[in-house]
Amino acid sequence: MTGAPTARTAPRDVPSGRPAAVPTPQPGDPRLARLAVNQMTVRSWGVRDLVQGCLRAGIPAVGLWREPVAEAGLSAAARWVRDAGLRVSSYCRGGFLTGADRAAALDDNRRAVDEAAELGAACLVMVVGGLGAHGRDLPGARARVADALAELAPYAAERGVRLGLEPLHPMFCADRAVLSTLGQALDLAETLPGAGVVVDAYHVWWDPQVAEQIRRAGAAHRIVSFQTCDWTLPLPADVLEGRGMPGDGHVDLRALRTAVDAAGYTGDIEVEIFNADVWAADPDDVIATIARRHVQHVL
Amino acid sequence: MTGAPTARTAPRDVPSGRPAAVPTPQPGDPRLARLAVNQMTVRSWGVRDLVQGCLRAGIPAVGLWREPVAEAGLSAAARWVRDAGLRVSSYCRGGFLTGADRAAALDDNRRAVDEAAELGAACLVMVVGGLGAHGRDLPGARARVADALAELAPYAAERGVRLGLEPLHPMFCADRAVLSTLGQALDLAETLPGAGVVVDAYHVWWDPQVAEQIRRAGAAHRIVSFQTCDWTLPLPADVLEGRGMPGDGHVDLRALRTAVDAAGYTGDIEVEIFNADVWAADPDDVIATIARRHVQHVL
Repeated sequence: MTGAPTARTAPRDVPSGRPAAVPTPQPGDPRLARLAVNQMTVRSWGVRDLVQGCLRAGIPAVGLWREPVAEAGLSAAARWVRDAGLRVSSYCRGGFLTGADRAAALDDNRRAVDEAAELGAACLVMVVGGLGAHGRDLPGARARVADALAELAPYAAERGVRLGLEPLHPMFCADRAVLSTLGQALDLAETLPGAGVVVDAYHVWWDPQVAEQIRRAGAAHRIVSFQTCDWTLPLPADVLEGRGMPGDGHVDLRALRTAVDAAGYTGDIEVEIFNADVWAADPDDVIATIARRHVQHVL
Repeated sequence: MTGAPTARTAPRDVPSGRPAAVPTPQPGDPRLARLAVNQMTVRSWGVRDLVQGCLRAGIPAVGLWREPVAEAGLSAAARWVRDAGLRVSSYCRGGFLTGADRAAALDDNRRAVDEAAELGAACLVMVVGGLGAHGRDLPGARARVADALAELAPYAAERGVRLGLEPLHPMFCADRAVLSTLGQALDLAETLPGAGVVVDAYHVWWDPQVAEQIRRAGAAHRIVSFQTCDWTLPLPADVLEGRGMPGDGHVDLRALRTAVDAAGYTGDIEVEIFNADVWAADPDDVIATIARRHVQHVL
């Protein structure tokens, strides 16, 4: 036995199993300075696990979700994150404003705003809801969303919480979000005090207007979050879980990151992946792969 | 035995199995005057079956596909349709212009134009291709499509064939069509002699700009096809086969038909469904259901 390191197996990316193409950036590496990991990417971890895992890997920011925060206790979660010196790049999520009970939805959203404020989150991500109680009336559902947000936005603004309107990929229009493009989300955000838009690569990469709308959103200081993951094919049986590890798919993430930076965004770059194969991998390996792919495909 | 009709089972819609909500319009019913059935909707039928089935049901127009037309023989197919007095509402399809061999793709598209001319089709539907040989370079793939269409369009125009640029739902952007919105398709069509756009409800219903772009396309006399089917959930494992029977899903088809009509479109309204359950049903029942749903949900 000596103190010298033993020969180690070269790391492999997950979930692809391919050999890592670049060395894993280590804590303190400036290339990690804006990297954030969304909790759903490593969903087997509670808030405390996530905080400790990000500290080990040198990741300075986390995206949190309401359910695991509630499980940990809001105050404890806020304290762990603060004590670790991490930023909360986003809080997921408010929204779902198109159901039958508008008042209950707004109450729940106000609670989400309060939680985001206590966590010091950079934004509260709003997934606004699908057709919901509106049957086939898509314009009606969109009007309902605008109406509810007009009521919620001052409450959020008073508490210093930025609402992040997230356009979802049009394949989610019927069931999850009637906000379908960045331009549409920005049109709405501009009517709301303090609100902005979430630029999620998975949802917007295909949009012929994406570059123009990123410029517009940046000029208005309304980009509140930038999220990465990749569009991989084939889509899985549940398309909600089709988000791929950056670099495994078809999206030019570097082009989007460059556009967002050129528009003046200086916030975190958050990796949010819903994918059964990623969830089945070791979370530390997931985070190490994310750090490598961030360098390789995003920066 | 008497000549009186025996009691008949009330018809049921396919594939839902629900009782028909309205009587089946009979041949000569003016509400069928613009209804067209796309061959892929009843894909077990060859061209001759399709022609005869539409005659039985009083459907005045058909959308044809290259493969079954080749199987029947182009001249024979053209003669059957002509002799039956049917219109060819569309011919599917040209496109796929983003692969490695541009010259071969253009040759194949010129053949498709020739076939569309012989069939007297109202348009040649263009599914332009996905990222193809362009890796992650989406703007590059889009430029390639524009470049190839600029070469093809004069050839089509000289033969009286209208190219119908079809924006596909953004979930097909990576692998099937980098034209993703009606506005984008129209921007391109307006640069091409005689070209137009295909307004397919399935692909465009979610678009916040759809009403505005339909108006714009109509004003420019560039709507060359209007297709209906429905967005049903959950999406199937192969999302290519997720198109539902009109009325089974979430799309306000009447609103889209009204918009297209208001924009000055007077052509056929073609039902194009890719759906394993529809394909498993009796084709005559499929056509009868289509006729009923057309009255109930489209007109």
